[in-house]
Amino acid sequence: MTQLEAAMHGKITDAMLYIAAKERKDPGEIRELVGSGRVIIPANSNHATLSNFTGIGETLCVKVNTNIGTSYDYINADEELEKAKVAIEYGTDTLMDLSTGGDLKFIRETILEICSVPLGTVPIYETEFRVARKSSVYDMTADDLFEVIEEHGKQGVDYITVHCGVTWESLKKYRNEERVTGIVSRGGGLTAAWMLKNKEENPLYKYYDRLLEIAREYDMTLSLGDGLRPGSLVDSTDRSQISELLIMGELVERARKAGVQTMVEGPGHIPLNEIQTNVHIQKKLTKGAPFYILGMLPTDVAAGFDHIAGAIGGALAGWHGADMLCYITPAEHLGLPTVQHVKDGVIAFKIAAHVADIARGNKASTQRNREMSEARYRLDWEKQFELALFPEDARGIFGERSSKTEACSMCGPFCPMNLVEQTLRKNKFAEV
Amino acid sequence: MTQLEAAMHGKITDAMLYIAAKERKDPGEIRELVGSGRVIIPANSNHATLSNFTGIGETLCVKVNTNIGTSYDYINADEELEKAKVAIEYGTDTLMDLSTGGDLKFIRETILEICSVPLGTVPIYETEFRVARKSSVYDMTADDLFEVIEEHGKQGVDYITVHCGVTWESLKKYRNEERVTGIVSRGGGLTAAWMLKNKEENPLYKYYDRLLEIAREYDMTLSLGDGLRPGSLVDSTDRSQISELLIMGELVERARKAGVQTMVEGPGHIPLNEIQTNVHIQKKLTKGAPFYILGMLPTDVAAGFDHIAGAIGGALAGWHGADMLCYITPAEHLGLPTVQHVKDGVIAFKIAAHVADIARGNKASTQRNREMSEARYRLDWEKQFELALFPEDARGIFGERSSKTEACSMCGPFCPMNLVEQTLRKNKFAEV
Repeated sequence: MTQLEAAMHGKITDAMLYIAAKERKDPGEIRELVGSGRVIIPANSNHATLSNFTGIGETLCVKVNTNIGTSYDYINADEELEKAKVAIEYGTDTLMDLSTGGDLKFIRETILEICSVPLGTVPIYETEFRVARKSSVYDMTADDLFEVIEEHGKQGVDYITVHCGVTWESLKKYRNEERVTGIVSRGGGLTAAWMLKNKEENPLYKYYDRLLEIAREYDMTLSLGDGLRPGSLVDSTDRSQISELLIMGELVERARKAGVQTMVEGPGHIPLNEIQTNVHIQKKLTKGAPFYILGMLPTDVAAGFDHIAGAIGGALAGWHGADMLCYITPAEHLGLPTVQHVKDGVIAFKIAAHVADIARGNKASTQRNREMSEARYRLDWEKQFELALFPEDARGIFGERSSKTEACSMCGPFCPMNLVEQTLRKNKFAEV
Repeated sequence: MTQLEAAMHGKITDAMLYIAAKERKDPGEIRELVGSGRVIIPANSNHATLSNFTGIGETLCVKVNTNIGTSYDYINADEELEKAKVAIEYGTDTLMDLSTGGDLKFIRETILEICSVPLGTVPIYETEFRVARKSSVYDMTADDLFEVIEEHGKQGVDYITVHCGVTWESLKKYRNEERVTGIVSRGGGLTAAWMLKNKEENPLYKYYDRLLEIAREYDMTLSLGDGLRPGSLVDSTDRSQISELLIMGELVERARKAGVQTMVEGPGHIPLNEIQTNVHIQKKLTKGAPFYILGMLPTDVAAGFDHIAGAIGGALAGWHGADMLCYITPAEHLGLPTVQHVKDGVIAFKIAAHVADIARGNKASTQRNREMSEARYRLDWEKQFELALFPEDARGIFGERSSKTEACSMCGPFCPMNLVEQTLRKNKFAEV
């Protein structure tokens, strides 16, 4: 039984109990949310190291996903493992292995061994990788694709990105519209190119029931990838994007009926003033499917610092209802990230998610901020480090410059928390 | 004549012409905006090195301010000069020297010598510094304060923060309300403490006309400091804060009548879901005075990375109408920033301002993003670096990992801009 089926049958699973405790919710409420498909719990029963169950969706904390993986140009399994460890240490809620170079199965196995959070993949990458070595990516068959998907399920992958919404229907909308950056999704682009070359419908759409069967067997969550997402602000929220979303909405409902958990992936390059609209239209058209967004990235020109630009868009989207933010690193649009880039990306997006949680009214987040402020007012540094999102980094900066006072080296004796407030407290406003 | 007086008399100054060209606006429109007080041009005629005139306010690009300056614990004039240079190099629109340690006049002089952008100060810091060395900060007199303000005007300071809104009236509202972090503005806290100790009204409020006279003489813009701004999310948008804003609104109108340019400073620690309200209420209550905000910072617990959290809040505020964002560095709440911290802070806030400009519909910003996307689609790397906000940083990351293909090391031969799109273009959708 998948988590969705269990919930629909009124059963509260161990994963639901774990998540209820983590999110400070009633287990019955979690069961209800999972049963309606508005919350998912990606948890393949073959993923033995999965100890930190994660719920993604309505009313829960906003989650962060970290992408890692080798590329054609850089194949170093150890470095990718190191990235996975750093991401988990800094609090990533899920991890995706997007490797496209080297021994893909081995790399995935190595990562799964230490992966306490849900692991996602994009099976078309491995499929194309295999086919390309034999002949051309265009020679891929539906069987090639489903074979890889089945293998990922068996191996313990918790969710897979499947670009099911790239179909003749959405490609027709794409054809009728001018775009500056065309298709920027690797999987979506490969799918579209394969379809055009072979004059065939997307096998993941055509044989969606077969996909659902495999997904159900392993309780592998489907992450409906947005192959037609905009790759630039000028292409944002266009007909191609929304046409694909319409199809994904239908596929969400079919999956739910089959007992398969689904979420929907979203953009991408979206200006700040279109973010709320993007979240609301996704929630409406998919009947509240968890929304897993890439950024959102509200400018195209922050190369080198896209983690910061992405955190801006991600926070706003999270506040308005996006449920998981795929992080972006400083290396986005420039190259394969280093371990440091991964760390920078996770930090920026954990901050964005936390900022969104506060705006969404999450009580535990609000309480943590209150306690931090109380500690700050008392000049209780140890407590401040403890409550900071990243204690060691905060402690490090504090330690760089010591102060001769109990305040920090910025204000010293003029610290308003200290001298000034003491006067105010002593006088108790008797004189006002 | 101040810029405001010139504008009211129908005169278009050189500074207005310069700004019109920079902002791609009609000079007549700039004159009108300045004449109404909705745009300010901080430009003290004694600031000889001021070459990059800056307009702050409605319909213009969102600006970024950088704070530098020595502290009680760290006095190194060379390092502060280095910070000033880095901030200007990375595009800060204005600079504030907040020094509170060492030879304050000399430090300011050194900075003014290289300061091509408007320079701001907080005269009460120097006043308290002088008084504290002789006796106690509580012995400050109104004359002590005005003496320093006059000196700053003579020296060429373009704008000064004056906490005129900390008055008996706003302190009564403060007294009637529980706050977790009390008063967190250094100048505001000193003013309040001085008032309580001496049972005197704030001299900057009591003798506001004297302040206006000095300001008018040097065309030194008044930045009405928010001494009662919230220092934590739990204190946000409270009666103390808004009570002070009401007073500042009145002071803006008195300044305009006296021909003195003013802007209004704003928070501070504000959750994401209160940012729009904060900007709109400021614009209403001050009749459209330029809004210069500190952050805004939408979480209290991002110590070590407050530049990222602040960029999130700043972008949202900028979109909704804030006109200048005071940057925050990674060292905020922890210590006096290093040169690297200053650089990190400026970068994060320049990105936030740009993201806001796009959302505000700024045409030049939108066009730059379009050109970047076109270059990205063509895999024209040199053009991408040229259009990036921080070209050298982008080039640096790109260069860290080379690719065997013309794409970057992330996707290599699977680059959707490349292989896939070529197929799509070649097939021209004839088969769809």
